[in-house]
Amino acid sequence: MMTHILQATAEAGANIALTKYWGNADPQQRIPANDSISITLDRTRTVTTVAFRPDLPEDEILVDGKRLVGPAGERVSRHLGLFRERAGIAWRARVVSENNFPAGAGIAASASGFAALTLACAAALKLDLSPRELSCLARRGSGSAARSIFGGFVLLHTASRDEDAFAEPLYAPDWWEIWDLIAVVSRAEKAVPSGEGHGLAPTSPLHTARVARVAELNRQLLDALARRDFAALGEAAEQDALMMHAVMMTSRPSLLYWLPETVALMHWVQARRREGIPAYFTIDAGPNVHILTLPPYHEMLREELQTLPEVQEVIPCRPGTGARIIAESEK
Amino acid sequence: MMTHILQATAEAGANIALTKYWGNADPQQRIPANDSISITLDRTRTVTTVAFRPDLPEDEILVDGKRLVGPAGERVSRHLGLFRERAGIAWRARVVSENNFPAGAGIAASASGFAALTLACAAALKLDLSPRELSCLARRGSGSAARSIFGGFVLLHTASRDEDAFAEPLYAPDWWEIWDLIAVVSRAEKAVPSGEGHGLAPTSPLHTARVARVAELNRQLLDALARRDFAALGEAAEQDALMMHAVMMTSRPSLLYWLPETVALMHWVQARRREGIPAYFTIDAGPNVHILTLPPYHEMLREELQTLPEVQEVIPCRPGTGARIIAESEK
Repeated sequence: MMTHILQATAEAGANIALTKYWGNADPQQRIPANDSISITLDRTRTVTTVAFRPDLPEDEILVDGKRLVGPAGERVSRHLGLFRERAGIAWRARVVSENNFPAGAGIAASASGFAALTLACAAALKLDLSPRELSCLARRGSGSAARSIFGGFVLLHTASRDEDAFAEPLYAPDWWEIWDLIAVVSRAEKAVPSGEGHGLAPTSPLHTARVARVAELNRQLLDALARRDFAALGEAAEQDALMMHAVMMTSRPSLLYWLPETVALMHWVQARRREGIPAYFTIDAGPNVHILTLPPYHEMLREELQTLPEVQEVIPCRPGTGARIIAESEK
Repeated sequence: MMTHILQATAEAGANIALTKYWGNADPQQRIPANDSISITLDRTRTVTTVAFRPDLPEDEILVDGKRLVGPAGERVSRHLGLFRERAGIAWRARVVSENNFPAGAGIAASASGFAALTLACAAALKLDLSPRELSCLARRGSGSAARSIFGGFVLLHTASRDEDAFAEPLYAPDWWEIWDLIAVVSRAEKAVPSGEGHGLAPTSPLHTARVARVAELNRQLLDALARRDFAALGEAAEQDALMMHAVMMTSRPSLLYWLPETVALMHWVQARRREGIPAYFTIDAGPNVHILTLPPYHEMLREELQTLPEVQEVIPCRPGTGARIIAESEK
């Protein structure tokens, strides 16, 4: 007897947040404390195949060839459960996910990973979901994954209800050729995964002030995007990266994601700017530095970055497309 | 004809703030935005001689053998003017100030310098001033100098009026043998002097939240000092150092005083703590790291610090005495 298999493959890109998601308004539903604006990236992509089958005793999750176990595996299983519930099916699934960026390069794969998984699950189970519904579901797996459903420049809403906390596209990828040169300074795993870190945000005496300021920065960013004002965009991004890390460092326990190399690159970016080069940094929950710049400076900056002793690798990214289905099959 | 000279020599120590002075409630009067608590240090001292003479065409200020000119010289002259006004005298003065810590070691000499200058001026001009009045006058020269008038553990009050913004001693130096191991990682001059930096504090979106939190930390510190609870003291000090630098980094323009070596030492201190060693860091407006610890750990930590490639020098300090007159003469 042929085993029935519901299978689909989807692809999604990581994104770099200009205003960050850090801390939840609702931890259960993973609703962010503040709106955030990001750029979906073209180069850092995840391809995920999910196959629901009646003959699997438990979910099997492979990421870059390695079986995911423990809390990371349970998180993916919980996400699969959201789709099983909607489809009214109990079948377990086999998930195979591949990142095209070096494994453990310190680039969060959870945004692209959960966006691709969300799309693949919906397609495999033939759920008829709108982009907003997909974005909300992706958010339940990883807050920033809600943004990676869409390409280009994206806004993720905070809200009081699950169904209102969706991302939406602001501008297509070709609206503005902003480069994100990801300077990898460490490939080490984070000591505290960002999933846990979100819970610590409210313990920082600076969290509330940051959330209030981000609302202002988002207005500044919307205006900067509309007018393609790079200095306004860069200043907002740099200030929120610094605010987020301030919240992290002053939480209890203190989260110090920066390394000496991180600070060396921050000074390097500010020095380039004093030379008149449009360059701003932003930093996610880790030590690597994203250098935002414009053509034609990206090539020169990339070459210079690659000569710095602090930099192991530079991954040059531009605005990329949103998540998409690559294949679906039922047999 | 003999020239009449009014002369005195005074000595004062630098201090390390557990809660910081950063930003003013009243910039004109240099009244700090928040109360701060510090330890006056025994090892980092300034000796200052001031001689008011009728035959000087202008003030002459020598610090560590070098003539002070420009804004730094004018700041000292303005301070001398406060005393001339009180004494009803117009004579210019010659000021000779020597720091016993390496010049340009990145240790702020303004606290010990203005405390010693204040005491020397008052003695030379035979002004009958109370310790509180001396503390207020020192504050006009440099906010943290108000604390260096006193020895041991000191509290500086913010206030709405000049005469209420004085420091007062909380405990004598022998109350608690806390060590401050000053790890010097750079001897470079600051790009932005802290005098200017104070004016930027209100441009940070985190400034108000920090000032509110410092009030809580001060209550925690008073309690920790009374009970000699080092973990409570260290945690409060570390959190406010991080908050102050967060305010600096997120001000406009951004002030990034940290160097790669600063962050390396922050990680080093947190790693020692995970090993069970009582060690906390604090950082003033510069890149050097102050490591707070207790006996008997100070010797081991000092030796270990001296082997680190990031550390140029370690200056081990304990609580020290307040400012005092060394000599006075009239001829």
